[in-house]
Amino acid sequence: MPKFEHHIFICANQRPAGNPRGCCDSEGLGSLQLAFKQEISRRGLKETVRANKAGCLDQCEHGPTVVIYPEGVWYGSVKAEDVAEIIESHIVNNVPVARLMLDGECINTPSCRHKRSRE
Amino acid sequence: MPKFEHHIFICANQRPAGNPRGCCDSEGLGSLQLAFKQEISRRGLKETVRANKAGCLDQCEHGPTVVIYPEGVWYGSVKAEDVAEIIESHIVNNVPVARLMLDGECINTPSCRHKRSRE
Repeated sequence: MPKFEHHIFICANQRPAGNPRGCCDSEGLGSLQLAFKQEISRRGLKETVRANKAGCLDQCEHGPTVVIYPEGVWYGSVKAEDVAEIIESHIVNNVPVARLMLDGECINTPSCRHKRSRE
Repeated sequence: MPKFEHHIFICANQRPAGNPRGCCDSEGLGSLQLAFKQEISRRGLKETVRANKAGCLDQCEHGPTVVIYPEGVWYGSVKAEDVAEIIESHIVNNVPVARLMLDGECINTPSCRHKRSRE
């Protein structure tokens, strides 16, 4: 069995209601991770693909946030209904889902058009 | 600011005491992640390196488990006192710490010399 060919990290961070940064799993249900796990299982990909819960990925304003390694592709505003497309296009066919990808200028930056400066 | 050059995922999974697979953070303190965060901050690497909490990485018998992407290097039995060496050698000098790396044959497999078969 190989190392995971794709390791999907799904932010499950919670912040109190009303926090200005928002958070990725306000209800704390882990439902997005569950959707990934179910689709991976359904497609028979469990041996090579893992859907992993992650603590805060620090892209809160773009959440729910998902990052897939080793390719380092970041997705934002991911909903459960997007999961089948991500698995089909990105994981099976190696074509990232452009409409959900975070702009490079929005990742790991203290300010972008979606968030107020934290400086 | 670039994407993270190194994204460190530290397993923070807990299982009940006595579970045969063990777990990576039996006390639920997140102390290993904290050690990484403190060392990253001390070395001035916060803009390009992130130490992230992760849910179960499924390598429980080798825990506490850490995986660093995009390079996909897996470490097992990591202690807080190993963190400075991982940051210095792996992150700063790009030389993984061989003594802590998981054998390829131990990763993502239902059985290895460290664990009973789950089949």
